[in-house]
Amino acid sequence: MKKILLSTALLSATAGMAAAEVTFGGYGRFGLEYVEGRAEETQVAMRLRFNINAKTETDSGVTFGGRIRLQYTDGNNASTISPAYVYASYEGFRVEVGNSNTAYDSAALMYNSEMGYLDTSAGDPIGSYYGFASTSYGGETDRMGIFASYSVGDLNVRLSYVAEDQAEAGNNDAELSFSADYKFGAITVSGAYAKDGLAIDDNDLIFLGAEYAINDMGNVGLLYFKEEVGAVDRDKFTLYGNYTFDAITARAYVAFGEDFGTEETAFGLGADYDLGGARLSGSIQSDFDGDMFGDVGVRFDF
Amino acid sequence: MKKILLSTALLSATAGMAAAEVTFGGYGRFGLEYVEGRAEETQVAMRLRFNINAKTETDSGVTFGGRIRLQYTDGNNASTISPAYVYASYEGFRVEVGNSNTAYDSAALMYNSEMGYLDTSAGDPIGSYYGFASTSYGGETDRMGIFASYSVGDLNVRLSYVAEDQAEAGNNDAELSFSADYKFGAITVSGAYAKDGLAIDDNDLIFLGAEYAINDMGNVGLLYFKEEVGAVDRDKFTLYGNYTFDAITARAYVAFGEDFGTEETAFGLGADYDLGGARLSGSIQSDFDGDMFGDVGVRFDF
Amino acid sequence: MKKILLSTALLSATAGMAAAEVTFGGYGRFGLEYVEGRAEETQVAMRLRFNINAKTETDSGVTFGGRIRLQYTDGNNASTISPAYVYASYEGFRVEVGNSNTAYDSAALMYNSEMGYLDTSAGDPIGSYYGFASTSYGGETDRMGIFASYSVGDLNVRLSYVAEDQAEAGNNDAELSFSADYKFGAITVSGAYAKDGLAIDDNDLIFLGAEYAINDMGNVGLLYFKEEVGAVDRDKFTLYGNYTFDAITARAYVAFGEDFGTEETAFGLGADYDLGGARLSGSIQSDFDGDMFGDVGVRFDF
Repeated sequence: MKKILLSTALLSATAGMAAAEVTFGGYGRFGLEYVEGRAEETQVAMRLRFNINAKTETDSGVTFGGRIRLQYTDGNNASTISPAYVYASYEGFRVEVGNSNTAYDSAALMYNSEMGYLDTSAGDPIGSYYGFASTSYGGETDRMGIFASYSVGDLNVRLSYVAEDQAEAGNNDAELSFSADYKFGAITVSGAYAKDGLAIDDNDLIFLGAEYAINDMGNVGLLYFKEEVGAVDRDKFTLYGNYTFDAITARAYVAFGEDFGTEETAFGLGADYDLGGARLSGSIQSDFDGDMFGDVGVRFDF
Repeated sequence: MKKILLSTALLSATAGMAAAEVTFGGYGRFGLEYVEGRAEETQVAMRLRFNINAKTETDSGVTFGGRIRLQYTDGNNASTISPAYVYASYEGFRVEVGNSNTAYDSAALMYNSEMGYLDTSAGDPIGSYYGFASTSYGGETDRMGIFASYSVGDLNVRLSYVAEDQAEAGNNDAELSFSADYKFGAITVSGAYAKDGLAIDDNDLIFLGAEYAINDMGNVGLLYFKEEVGAVDRDKFTLYGNYTFDAITARAYVAFGEDFGTEETAFGLGADYDLGGARLSGSIQSDFDGDMFGDVGVRFDF
Repeated sequence: MKKILLSTALLSATAGMAAAEVTFGGYGRFGLEYVEGRAEETQVAMRLRFNINAKTETDSGVTFGGRIRLQYTDGNNASTISPAYVYASYEGFRVEVGNSNTAYDSAALMYNSEMGYLDTSAGDPIGSYYGFASTSYGGETDRMGIFASYSVGDLNVRLSYVAEDQAEAGNNDAELSFSADYKFGAITVSGAYAKDGLAIDDNDLIFLGAEYAINDMGNVGLLYFKEEVGAVDRDKFTLYGNYTFDAITARAYVAFGEDFGTEETAFGLGADYDLGGARLSGSIQSDFDGDMFGDVGVRFDF
């Protein structure tokens, strides 16, 4: 007596209709995680995520919709249900309101050095900024985000504004961010800027990145992050690459920065094994304090 | 890899089966909301609502089912998941148990003066009474509702009983309510009565309403509400109308009452623009304290 | 504009694809419940449960998936969303990680003396042990379960390990359990053992059970439970039977044990009436303190 949601492909095959629809997408992952220096260094990690998506298309071709995320990650007492965003889109334009995505967090390439089934990297972005809140607003109940994006050909530009508390009189604390990326031939470039990231005064963030596709199987990329807030003024460079041969994708990165820990270099080596609908992934990484991180496990999307 | 739930129409087209099913319906809305006198008068408002419905039909034609509401409204830290009701229905009969609807809150016409994408009106019902709890019981964990309705032709009658705390010994606090409506030709009449509304002793509510369809495009209606509780004894009259020409529906109401604020009159003017699957709606309203309310935004159903 | 999830049967009929899918299953129930001695002895009881299941199958035939439970039971302020488990299965093998099932709780026959629409019995298992957490971990945020099962023909074996707090240094408190069952002809036998049930030191539980199918319509069974923890060392025997004639199934049990209350015997009589897609069930039971329990109501699955 179970119910099954059909796949997009089947729907398209059987109907040219369905103006309104609710869809579920998401992923699951589980495996081992080693974090040097924590109370129990080796633990089992797992997550199950559902994105619940609604949408309807008007006669004029405008699509309206929204999303709520339902998720469980180990270390929580129960599953969480995120705040929602609603959106309108028309051709290449899209506007989100509520728990919106942000321009800075959505910049292309930014997270491309991540590896392992947990998708982590010591070469990830630095500093504090808003993004889609996966679980809750953390007590910022009157947070309000607005996000706009435009895509034309291989160009994407995004602008977002997130007010920390839109209901408090005189509270103008807000994050403003912008990002753009462009692909020409084998090269992708991406840049992003956030003013008052996470609605913190004078917390400015810059990101620049470029990726080059060596051939169909390999990529190399270079990322640059800058954070300026109060007495903090620091930069990180991340150089990464990946190469696929048969079912295996090998990954590596090295990140440089003077002000992130006892070390000026962090690095990681990882590999994915394609299970044909899921992947077995592992990585060994060393962070800016020289602490080791390792993970091995499975991730599957649905 | 996203999953899509098919529409009712497609299901019907492909199968005469599916005794059991789970369906998602709901709506999203977003726009601006102006409330004179609050800390920040103009704010962005948004909501995304999913009604998760289950049902199964027995061989004898009785349908059993239930509903939980998943919702996010701006001003909350995360989405909420309501208490549930379960129901049985057979032909025109329906019984709900749990977080049931109530007879008073389900009366026809009652909310017909509402306007704008936020569906509000100063001509709305007065007083305190139960309805389906969208988010939670607000701490009344042992609340228990029972609702029965019967529809035959153009007649609907409803009876409901909501116990405030069915588990506490000797606690007989409960709301009892009744409503009925009937449509004959161009006229619809509706009435409702609640005894001990919201399980408050001697909190009695009365509603009477009538609506006349001028033609296919326009309606006028008159609503009467009475609230008697303790030293409070007050009445509200709401006169409203709407008229549709092409894609536009114009709406207006005026409400009268001596004991609701500094003014004896409240009013509103609004308009909907049909987007063919969504609507752009706006309103300007003045409440019984003479404070202005305005909204403009989009609402879409799915 | 509602969306409908299609049934498994229809999906199979229309497609040999759909590697990934999200399904909803569950049940609803409502009726009366009498518990002798509680503040209000007779109350209305209801529940609505959704199991949200995701899965995807790899090219090699391994299935990966997961589950979260969304549920409302009377007496709660709102619905609950359980922690999740994720799993991998291949032919008869299955491994679950997270809020997993447990070997002890999954043993066959264990709950077969239950009756009524609330599915209860004074002949149920004794002692404390883990199972799939329907609502939350009750504050044990770092609980982590692993479950493995193997089925071949009519044999099922299961092994599970649940750590109470995998993140706390030096905390090795965990429940280990094992169960197996086998069916040969009209006879089913089942056994289970839990060491340190519910991660309580030296809390050992044993279960042995056998059921005999008299014919297509009737079954009798005998269950044995043993609990040893601290100064507690007690046994329970449960003898039960059921018989189906036409749409009615009659049920009875008697349970024996010296250390469960003022009485050494508990018993129950119940009946189900098949509604063809739902069942009307009732029972009258007497527990080990001689207190009466009664229920009558409807349960439907979807």
